[in-house]
Amino acid sequence: MLQSKLLTKTRKDGPKDEVSKNAILLTRAGYVNKEIAGVYSYLPLGLRVLNKINNIIREEMNAIGGQELFLTALQDSAPWKATDRWDSQKMDIWFKTKLLNNTELGLAFTHEEPLTALMKNHIRSFRDLPTYPYQIQTKFRNEARAKSGIMRSREFLMKDLYSFSKDENEHNIFYEKAKIAYKKVFEKVGLGDITYITFASGGSFSKYSHEFQTVTSAGEDIINCCDKCMIAVNSEVIKEQPACPKCGNTKLVEKKASEVGNIFTLGTKFSEPLGLYYVNEKNEKLSVFMGCYGIGPGRVMGTVVEVFADDKGLVWPKAIAPFSVHIIEISGDSDKVKKSAKDLYEKLEKMGIETLYDDRDLRAGEKFNDSDLLGIPLRIVVSEKGLAEGVFEVKDRASGKVEMVKEKDILEFVEKNK
Amino acid sequence: MLQSKLLTKTRKDGPKDEVSKNAILLTRAGYVNKEIAGVYSYLPLGLRVLNKINNIIREEMNAIGGQELFLTALQDSAPWKATDRWDSQKMDIWFKTKLLNNTELGLAFTHEEPLTALMKNHIRSFRDLPTYPYQIQTKFRNEARAKSGIMRSREFLMKDLYSFSKDENEHNIFYEKAKIAYKKVFEKVGLGDITYITFASGGSFSKYSHEFQTVTSAGEDIINCCDKCMIAVNSEVIKEQPACPKCGNTKLVEKKASEVGNIFTLGTKFSEPLGLYYVNEKNEKLSVFMGCYGIGPGRVMGTVVEVFADDKGLVWPKAIAPFSVHIIEISGDSDKVKKSAKDLYEKLEKMGIETLYDDRDLRAGEKFNDSDLLGIPLRIVVSEKGLAEGVFEVKDRASGKVEMVKEKDILEFVEKNK
Repeated sequence: MLQSKLLTKTRKDGPKDEVSKNAILLTRAGYVNKEIAGVYSYLPLGLRVLNKINNIIREEMNAIGGQELFLTALQDSAPWKATDRWDSQKMDIWFKTKLLNNTELGLAFTHEEPLTALMKNHIRSFRDLPTYPYQIQTKFRNEARAKSGIMRSREFLMKDLYSFSKDENEHNIFYEKAKIAYKKVFEKVGLGDITYITFASGGSFSKYSHEFQTVTSAGEDIINCCDKCMIAVNSEVIKEQPACPKCGNTKLVEKKASEVGNIFTLGTKFSEPLGLYYVNEKNEKLSVFMGCYGIGPGRVMGTVVEVFADDKGLVWPKAIAPFSVHIIEISGDSDKVKKSAKDLYEKLEKMGIETLYDDRDLRAGEKFNDSDLLGIPLRIVVSEKGLAEGVFEVKDRASGKVEMVKEKDILEFVEKNK
Repeated sequence: MLQSKLLTKTRKDGPKDEVSKNAILLTRAGYVNKEIAGVYSYLPLGLRVLNKINNIIREEMNAIGGQELFLTALQDSAPWKATDRWDSQKMDIWFKTKLLNNTELGLAFTHEEPLTALMKNHIRSFRDLPTYPYQIQTKFRNEARAKSGIMRSREFLMKDLYSFSKDENEHNIFYEKAKIAYKKVFEKVGLGDITYITFASGGSFSKYSHEFQTVTSAGEDIINCCDKCMIAVNSEVIKEQPACPKCGNTKLVEKKASEVGNIFTLGTKFSEPLGLYYVNEKNEKLSVFMGCYGIGPGRVMGTVVEVFADDKGLVWPKAIAPFSVHIIEISGDSDKVKKSAKDLYEKLEKMGIETLYDDRDLRAGEKFNDSDLLGIPLRIVVSEKGLAEGVFEVKDRASGKVEMVKEKDILEFVEKNK
């Protein structure tokens, strides 16, 4: 896309009312816009990143049998009353609203209740199990404080998958598959090396739940890490589990981390009160055994910013960058430079390589500053000086490495390094 | 996908509390689930249709320069107070909610106000115009009644594009482009032949706005049609415009129709109170000239159901069907049939043709009934009788036409007729 047409502008100064690095940089770079504290709109560049994260998640959820659906935000009280989660005194995270006839509705902060109720229409026999619906959908949470930018929002996208199994054994098989799928997601988005699977507090149906925690100074949690196993123990359970649950290592290292995903055994906690049963081979009526599996794509995006950004701006891993290549034309009105840059842009687009082309009539310094701030992985400078030598200057945003690439080799170079 | 794995089931009887054909059929076929009156979840089959409609819209919006973003549902009162649309007495369509500190928030029923406010960060000079942000995002409307299924919902997806132009001339050029793009959308989803562009009441900045109205007995509107021009006049303006605005034809035909899209000249109605200005070449400060352009993908989907469904069930146009092909295996335990059906399924999937394969152990009659209800365009029956003759029975859901296609020709046939 032509940068002259991009509808957002960068800004030099961060917003005065933000304290988190992710909110400051994403706002300055024009990726998000704060509407209310903890409520962010995604502008074109931000939405591109978010959609790439969503698609990585989708791919892995589909691979383990997930079927995507899309539930509603507005909630009837009935199923929530059945599980005793309707009362705003007990669940102060609710946003509530009303129909014109004064009926109270809620805005879903999660979807166990409505989905369990819905599945009663579709699960009757053992033949209907297991099944794995998921969605990437907006959640609303009435957080008391919201100072972590897009890492803890009052309105945010969430991927939530729910497993419906015949029994705990069948559940456990899927639960382990989900762990692997989650690992793949975090590897693909670029957080694999610093994301631990952690043992967190469980619930009525399992001793522990599992979280995926990415090490970052911006994290709100403390985890106790076994670096050999990439396994950690959350602080809330470290007393009962003071060693690595895999290798027994007792020298765990405390680190600050951000929870980017969690998986949870629900058992029959929701199926029982809501009456979600199936009939087994022996014609016995049994409660469906459930699990839930969450990832916040915005939380992931914010964590990526916190982890990789430097003092010049954003740094995107290749898999989730809004564009792969940023062409900077330093023309000083040279038609030759303009033609060469435009030509390169058109060729890259034709190859299906997403390219932002800075065709604006601005000073070189401003363009470089913007480019650093936007954080696109590969920057190609087209200048008079370079063309005179038959080369483009290519810079890798993450490593800062600069190479001169011959004009004739540039397409191949990009294809290899995108 | 294997139908035995599909997480939804069909049902014989329609829900008792629904009156609209679209809600009854979509519920019976497992495409949607009613959560509250006028609030529908989209199940996997329904979401597939909705996403196809969304992608058709996206393609046309991108083609005329649209840039996708994603605004929030939760709304701060400030910009709405500036345009005098905050008061729930005046705008009874609002759903309102509150932060824990009692600050009142709204759930957006449209996005002129927040987007206009947001664009103040990105529009300063004539060089920044025109620009065309759009989104496909959930709207909330506190409708008094909700009896039209997914055609009039309290929570629904909407594509809303907003144009920001320097002046009325520049606006008009885009407005005409948008009309053509809208026509293409309705042609692609299969409603082209019965969708009129209508003259509707305007506003402070134009005599008329334009709607796209699809003729259907389920429609809530009456339009006065010139069939020669595919132009109509809405009832509310027929007195001042009693003839076809294009050819002058006065013999307009009254028809019931459903509004599937609208485009509207806003002028400076929002930019003035919200202070969205730009500086022109002469260094003069001027208000940005705006337009808005809406399509409800759910409304389109519901209209398609109303228009095409027959007494056996849904009938999807090819471009938006959840699957292109429905393979029905009538095996009676014949391994040969099962193998042939599975083989065909795998080949079609490999060709990238979306196929639902009914591998369930059910009576033929039940499978055919389900197939008619689901409405997938091409049905291929794999049976012992057919295989003995070396053919598959292929039925076109829309026309009912049945053909025997030789085994060796089936892939080519599907490729041509999908």
